[in-house]
Amino acid sequence: MASPGSGFWSFGSEDGSGDPENPGTARAWCQVAQKFTGGIGNKLCALLYGDAEKPAESSGSQPPRATSRKAACSCNQKPCSCPKAEVNYAFLHATDLLPACDGERPTLAFLQEVMDILLQYVVKSFDRSTKVIDFHYPNELLQEYNWELADQPQNLEEILMHCQTTLKYAIKTGHPRYFNQLSTGLDMVGLAADWLTSTANTNMFTYEIAPVFVLLEYVTLKKMREIIGWPGGSGDGIFSPGGAISNMYAMLIARFKMFPEVKEKGMAAVPRLIAFTSEHSHFSLKKGAAALGIGTDSVILIKCDERGKMIPSDLERRILEAKQKGFVPFLVSATAGTTVYGAFDPLLAVADICKKYKIWMHVDAAWGGGLLMSRKHKWKLSGVERANSVTWNPHKMMGVPLQCSALLVREEGLMQSCNQMHASYLFQQDKHYDLSYDTGDKALQCGRHVDVFKLWLMWRAKGTIGFEAHIDKCLELAEYLYNIIKNREGYEMVFDGKPQHTNVCFWYVPPSLRVLDNNEERLSRLSKVAPVIKARMMESGTTMVSYQPLGDKVNFFRMVISNPAATHQDIDFLIEEIERLGQDL
Amino acid sequence: MASPGSGFWSFGSEDGSGDPENPGTARAWCQVAQKFTGGIGNKLCALLYGDAEKPAESSGSQPPRATSRKAACSCNQKPCSCPKAEVNYAFLHATDLLPACDGERPTLAFLQEVMDILLQYVVKSFDRSTKVIDFHYPNELLQEYNWELADQPQNLEEILMHCQTTLKYAIKTGHPRYFNQLSTGLDMVGLAADWLTSTANTNMFTYEIAPVFVLLEYVTLKKMREIIGWPGGSGDGIFSPGGAISNMYAMLIARFKMFPEVKEKGMAAVPRLIAFTSEHSHFSLKKGAAALGIGTDSVILIKCDERGKMIPSDLERRILEAKQKGFVPFLVSATAGTTVYGAFDPLLAVADICKKYKIWMHVDAAWGGGLLMSRKHKWKLSGVERANSVTWNPHKMMGVPLQCSALLVREEGLMQSCNQMHASYLFQQDKHYDLSYDTGDKALQCGRHVDVFKLWLMWRAKGTIGFEAHIDKCLELAEYLYNIIKNREGYEMVFDGKPQHTNVCFWYVPPSLRVLDNNEERLSRLSKVAPVIKARMMESGTTMVSYQPLGDKVNFFRMVISNPAATHQDIDFLIEEIERLGQDL
Repeated sequence: MASPGSGFWSFGSEDGSGDPENPGTARAWCQVAQKFTGGIGNKLCALLYGDAEKPAESSGSQPPRATSRKAACSCNQKPCSCPKAEVNYAFLHATDLLPACDGERPTLAFLQEVMDILLQYVVKSFDRSTKVIDFHYPNELLQEYNWELADQPQNLEEILMHCQTTLKYAIKTGHPRYFNQLSTGLDMVGLAADWLTSTANTNMFTYEIAPVFVLLEYVTLKKMREIIGWPGGSGDGIFSPGGAISNMYAMLIARFKMFPEVKEKGMAAVPRLIAFTSEHSHFSLKKGAAALGIGTDSVILIKCDERGKMIPSDLERRILEAKQKGFVPFLVSATAGTTVYGAFDPLLAVADICKKYKIWMHVDAAWGGGLLMSRKHKWKLSGVERANSVTWNPHKMMGVPLQCSALLVREEGLMQSCNQMHASYLFQQDKHYDLSYDTGDKALQCGRHVDVFKLWLMWRAKGTIGFEAHIDKCLELAEYLYNIIKNREGYEMVFDGKPQHTNVCFWYVPPSLRVLDNNEERLSRLSKVAPVIKARMMESGTTMVSYQPLGDKVNFFRMVISNPAATHQDIDFLIEEIERLGQDL
Repeated sequence: MASPGSGFWSFGSEDGSGDPENPGTARAWCQVAQKFTGGIGNKLCALLYGDAEKPAESSGSQPPRATSRKAACSCNQKPCSCPKAEVNYAFLHATDLLPACDGERPTLAFLQEVMDILLQYVVKSFDRSTKVIDFHYPNELLQEYNWELADQPQNLEEILMHCQTTLKYAIKTGHPRYFNQLSTGLDMVGLAADWLTSTANTNMFTYEIAPVFVLLEYVTLKKMREIIGWPGGSGDGIFSPGGAISNMYAMLIARFKMFPEVKEKGMAAVPRLIAFTSEHSHFSLKKGAAALGIGTDSVILIKCDERGKMIPSDLERRILEAKQKGFVPFLVSATAGTTVYGAFDPLLAVADICKKYKIWMHVDAAWGGGLLMSRKHKWKLSGVERANSVTWNPHKMMGVPLQCSALLVREEGLMQSCNQMHASYLFQQDKHYDLSYDTGDKALQCGRHVDVFKLWLMWRAKGTIGFEAHIDKCLELAEYLYNIIKNREGYEMVFDGKPQHTNVCFWYVPPSLRVLDNNEERLSRLSKVAPVIKARMMESGTTMVSYQPLGDKVNFFRMVISNPAATHQDIDFLIEEIERLGQDL
């Protein structure tokens, strides 16, 4: 029998777990393992205790390394009572894993080892005594660790170490005090579903290669359309790689609907097209216009009121102005939940205008769409049912792991006509099943990542009422924060009134600035407060919240709450932390 | 103490694993578990044996269901010797998992349970005695199982069952006999890395929220550019959601380079632009042109030789023709590894022409890029170093899990200028670290999925030589297939000569057709052979290979090999299977 460290499998009995004088002990462990891990138990037992059916390899044709591999034991008892074998990953390489011959045992051990690292990270993520981030500057991180790629392979011990190191420096986006982005939190069912998606490792273009996922996309998008309010959930849709692409797809489809010849002839064949969106809307509208050959100059930014909502009269004025110039208004993108203020444009008024002027109405509800799941808050999106298309990102307010963004389109078939190219090697017309399930030609993408399963599984696990509870709670927390700081010394709200979404925008004014008049110097100093506090937050790693300037408003904090782990105490903590880190400024 | 089945935690000692008369047994299991699962061991033990530090919840403020929760035991021994607790998932819901108070124990158990399901699937995937697919028609699948979404939550037992069901009907894309797509196989290190990516659950736009992943993208793209042959690996790049988007990004950047004013002014401000690509190129070039407002009519398809390679003299002729009409040639997209034939366009000749006429040279090496990793085969891409941009999908020939597509651009800074919109809430200019690591404004997307980690970790685990070995082996297998069938009765090759990539294109001619003259009737009957064999393959679930017509060639099989699990025996099996399923046609 091999001595410890002599090969891939070494043996340890110092913990008494495999005490040869107590054969029942090891057998008991295997029995427990079989119970706990289902069918994998046998394999884990074989891994730990050896498997005589797979004899040790020692033929001369093996590469040198492989000759040191030994079976864990050669006794006939299954499960046997020989000392527990420990896997020595320093002697294993990727080439020893499946599909390698005899690769099953090291594969199961290796993947379980990775899983343990991940489970530790998950538990830590929710632990308030751990840091949100162990921040290092880019040059520090580049110097502290060798990240370079080389010709030669590394062993699996090194690979496991890389996994640990990567997570050591990662942001804990599920941490209860992580408020930095619109997407925060780490849902356990969503995570499990994403692991399954990775394991299934397929693509969305045809039913042939993703039968279940294609059906789940169909079911889920239909449900989302029902919630939007389109009769019977009719219409079309797709999950796309993020809200910016969903918005661009909407713009593309709107243009095609009005001028189908643009597909073949390009923009040269159509008049000058104009899109309208609010000055607080997401920058992806401009990015989309630049990409689609429309040009950013043709995106007219409509004025907002002091709460960040589009002013309908200004929209109508600008539409008329464009028409007078001979341009063709083709799209209005209203925002349901702006990025910074969390404002909801008045969708009903916008819908009336779009109807009057026969313009495609798109609603960018990437951030605000989640509120449709709440009976208490869905009124904020009244009128969304009159839209021609809606962007809705479950990876934001609904807490689905990244990425999960849906574009929903009211008219069925339009996406297909707009984007299809009939690639005969992918979408064969003589297949043996209903071809309407081959959705790949609806998008610009050919392969499309499977983004639906995590949303579907979470929906099953939470029910619509579970999403509702999450959203109501986040909005309640935002109101709690608002109520605390609106009259608190040292805080100024960026806009008045209770927030409509979870965005709470405020300045923290350090004591030294409170005595100053509201002049240029004060503004200049105030603009530096948030960046310094944010930098200190990241260096201390205690919490993270975003800041930005907007229009004539200097840098202010934008607090958003989508994190299911956050509580009232975490909101209190954030305030204390801002004051602790900023009071000397 | 609770009796079995009385709550979330029930107890069983029938397997003797937790025999109260043998306290050492249970302790031993915990010790083994601690050894095997690292820091998680303690938690698993607490889960199985109870943890007095976390008392049972029974306060009246809990919802009714929670009152039935019991601690596993209340003894003081840690690990204790009380009977093993089994988790009853029928009594648990998503709301019992983290971040729920006391959610750690059920979370670890639940995620481990999911992991066991995934490990079983992984092992099965590589088992030749299992089916590649358990095929059901869409209506069957919709009827056999309830996939609908509801208001009410389901318990975790049902959630685990959904995971099993989803995998039951999934395609085993890692199965040694799955040859259906350019992306096949399931790499164990890549899978582990993708699980880690899901767990980290972040976005690529800023260093702030993805420090390690942003650095790894930097390191990996630089290495890829070195391999392409750009001096010092200089240039730019990004991982995008698939090759079609990478190609569209290339087209977008090429247009911007020639006419930067298009970003603001749109296509109205520029002359008619023309792109050139071969008639065998990927349909994403046309999709991109349609989207970007260029129009599909402005994509000129260049003739190919009988092997599917672009004919340079035809390219030059069409460029001159376009210029004579006053149009502006702005992009040539050469293909390195066409989708159907696996052909490599003559890149050096194309580069000369692009240089002569000052046209952006893009190389779509989505499929063929992997060959750059092989000293034996990289000559097929000679001239790629002269390209202005390259699409290269490691998720195809390099076996990285989906999705992983890189766009590489020779000129640094161009992507940023082309796509940036300076959203102040994301890319604050007063951050405390080097802003060049905030890469989010280089793409149309705002959030961008983390696609780099699996490639980076696989590269570490395999080394460049590991990728080389994989690619050389796949090409050798393709040659093996070619050598078997080129002279075999009942086979006709679609093009003559040894394949340059792993694509082997052939007709299987059933005995009844072998006697017919080469006329319309024979062609008509031959066109139906591959679809029928494919349908039978899927119904029997034994293997999967793609077919399609192309130009004047009726339906033929396109065999591709990117699957690391495939062996000579699997190739033999495929041939036998085609003959078994098709001989009566």
